[in-house]
Amino acid sequence: MIRTLTTCLTAIIFAGHAVAADWQALPDTALAPADNPTTEAKVELGKMLYMDPRFSSTGTVSCNSCHNIMEGGEDSRSVSMGVHGKTGSRNAPTVWNSAFHSVQFWDGRAVLLEDQARGPVANPVEMGMSDVEAAMERVRAIPGYQPWFDQAFGKDSMTVENAAKAVAAFERTLITPNSPFDRYVKGDKKAMTEQQVRGMNTFAASGCTGCHSGAAFNGPEMKTGEGFYAKFPTFTDNAYVSRYKLADDKGRHDVTGNAADENMFRVPTLRNITDTAPYFHNGSVNDLHEAVRIMAKTQLNRELGDKEVDDIVAFLAALTGEYPTIVMPRLPATAGRSLLIQ
Amino acid sequence: MIRTLTTCLTAIIFAGHAVAADWQALPDTALAPADNPTTEAKVELGKMLYMDPRFSSTGTVSCNSCHNIMEGGEDSRSVSMGVHGKTGSRNAPTVWNSAFHSVQFWDGRAVLLEDQARGPVANPVEMGMSDVEAAMERVRAIPGYQPWFDQAFGKDSMTVENAAKAVAAFERTLITPNSPFDRYVKGDKKAMTEQQVRGMNTFAASGCTGCHSGAAFNGPEMKTGEGFYAKFPTFTDNAYVSRYKLADDKGRHDVTGNAADENMFRVPTLRNITDTAPYFHNGSVNDLHEAVRIMAKTQLNRELGDKEVDDIVAFLAALTGEYPTIVMPRLPATAGRSLLIQ
Repeated sequence: MIRTLTTCLTAIIFAGHAVAADWQALPDTALAPADNPTTEAKVELGKMLYMDPRFSSTGTVSCNSCHNIMEGGEDSRSVSMGVHGKTGSRNAPTVWNSAFHSVQFWDGRAVLLEDQARGPVANPVEMGMSDVEAAMERVRAIPGYQPWFDQAFGKDSMTVENAAKAVAAFERTLITPNSPFDRYVKGDKKAMTEQQVRGMNTFAASGCTGCHSGAAFNGPEMKTGEGFYAKFPTFTDNAYVSRYKLADDKGRHDVTGNAADENMFRVPTLRNITDTAPYFHNGSVNDLHEAVRIMAKTQLNRELGDKEVDDIVAFLAALTGEYPTIVMPRLPATAGRSLLIQ
Repeated sequence: MIRTLTTCLTAIIFAGHAVAADWQALPDTALAPADNPTTEAKVELGKMLYMDPRFSSTGTVSCNSCHNIMEGGEDSRSVSMGVHGKTGSRNAPTVWNSAFHSVQFWDGRAVLLEDQARGPVANPVEMGMSDVEAAMERVRAIPGYQPWFDQAFGKDSMTVENAAKAVAAFERTLITPNSPFDRYVKGDKKAMTEQQVRGMNTFAASGCTGCHSGAAFNGPEMKTGEGFYAKFPTFTDNAYVSRYKLADDKGRHDVTGNAADENMFRVPTLRNITDTAPYFHNGSVNDLHEAVRIMAKTQLNRELGDKEVDDIVAFLAALTGEYPTIVMPRLPATAGRSLLIQ
């Protein structure tokens, strides 16, 4: 549902210039679930909650710590560092354009952003709270949050459910439209360089669009609740798999227990990929050229030449869009007393 | 020098209302050193550097992590948590209005903000870089920073000295004028409540202004290089000293080695003190009422009644000013490669 986009879905064939593919510009708004329409009040409240580190056990980790909206929506680390310097096993996916994902998390264990927002709070290597209700107790202990909840959700609305809705509403505004690719698709033929157009053609002709299709290059539109997954690595008879430990993480299998889900991952967006190194679910590859070579080999069993790789990387750079201007929220204080100390 | 304020320095006596004291409104600008005039380009660059966590060893700690400008300019913790979950021994002072401090750090080991900015980068329990030049190497490795340095300082200007100047220039804009107290001092007699006026009088009559004088309530104007220090605790024959371990930290003595500097600390500002709990150099006291009682006993050998304490706390709340609106900076990327990974 959240991927149901009514604008900018244009199937374009650049006769003589581009390989036939359903190239789509990124919408500049995201649809919201029926029970959580996006409002200004929710977005403002969600931004505050997103940036507030006091809802982690140490008071040092906010959503933004690992999904930094001043950067590419992640943290430049292979795997994130949560409370007490603890680390997890997966690379933080970018929050930018996450509204357009079929499901959330690498393993799709949350369907909507509303579900995702609750996860890291109680993860012992992320925000480290005993449970999400304990975090909500802290929200309630900050008097300045109440008027924001009142405005966004009405009286007596300081619940986990509404906090998650507010964060999700804010995240749905984190969209980066108007990349060179988007302008090209919309008709500005000078928006991409010749090399980028060549890279786009190679990208499609090589089969990358088999998974990386759609406006966010993360697969086709799905029904709500259905994720778009791919097996990674698909072709394992190559040196990359062991060198980068690509098959160690069983992906969605750890959620469902189904053998068919082994090494299945939600297909990530390629939007702003130049800003989100390092790459892959384990953050093991710190070079976009190498990442492209690996994907070609492990997913398509193709060995790309250096020029093809360069062209595709040039094209991927054309997917980096415009980040909106965001005013820092003021995080309300607890007058004369820190709630981090009992 | 940075405390030389040419405006708003008004000595006001509220005949019949207030105890005679040199009450001063907070200026809305801070003077800068002659070799680092504040410019828009420096402020913008400084804001980026201030918010960028990539200059810590783990990539998780920025200046803002412990001196959070979305909050009271600190982190609500007793002592801050740096890289790998390590903790120090002193409470993070607020960055708000730090331009008006006589010297920087609790022990005054830096004179100017330009000097202070270099300290935490190489502190093993703060940002944990091997040295400040290693952090500067990272700045240089991010192509998007160069045009900002060019604009702020001219060509070939990517040096530690200029980075520190930019951060200091940004910090000099972090001023919170127009508190109820400021409006009261400027003539709006309704800006403070009766209790706050009473608290102001008790504050002065009790002797608090002996140290907490001036526009920032952190002491008189000093010559550049000279700090305004006070011995804390001065009176040690009370239960507070051991209960809160007030005398364990030798303060400026650890910098100079002089016996006369034992337990001497730079007098902190009281501006926005309601937003900066917990209190004191060791962050040991998490209640502003208790902090007021302790200060009266340990510094003035006075025991305040509950009503006096309540009044003073009410007055201190009148020192919380208006935080300026700040737009989040975009932190430039290193295309297709994270500089946190070698």
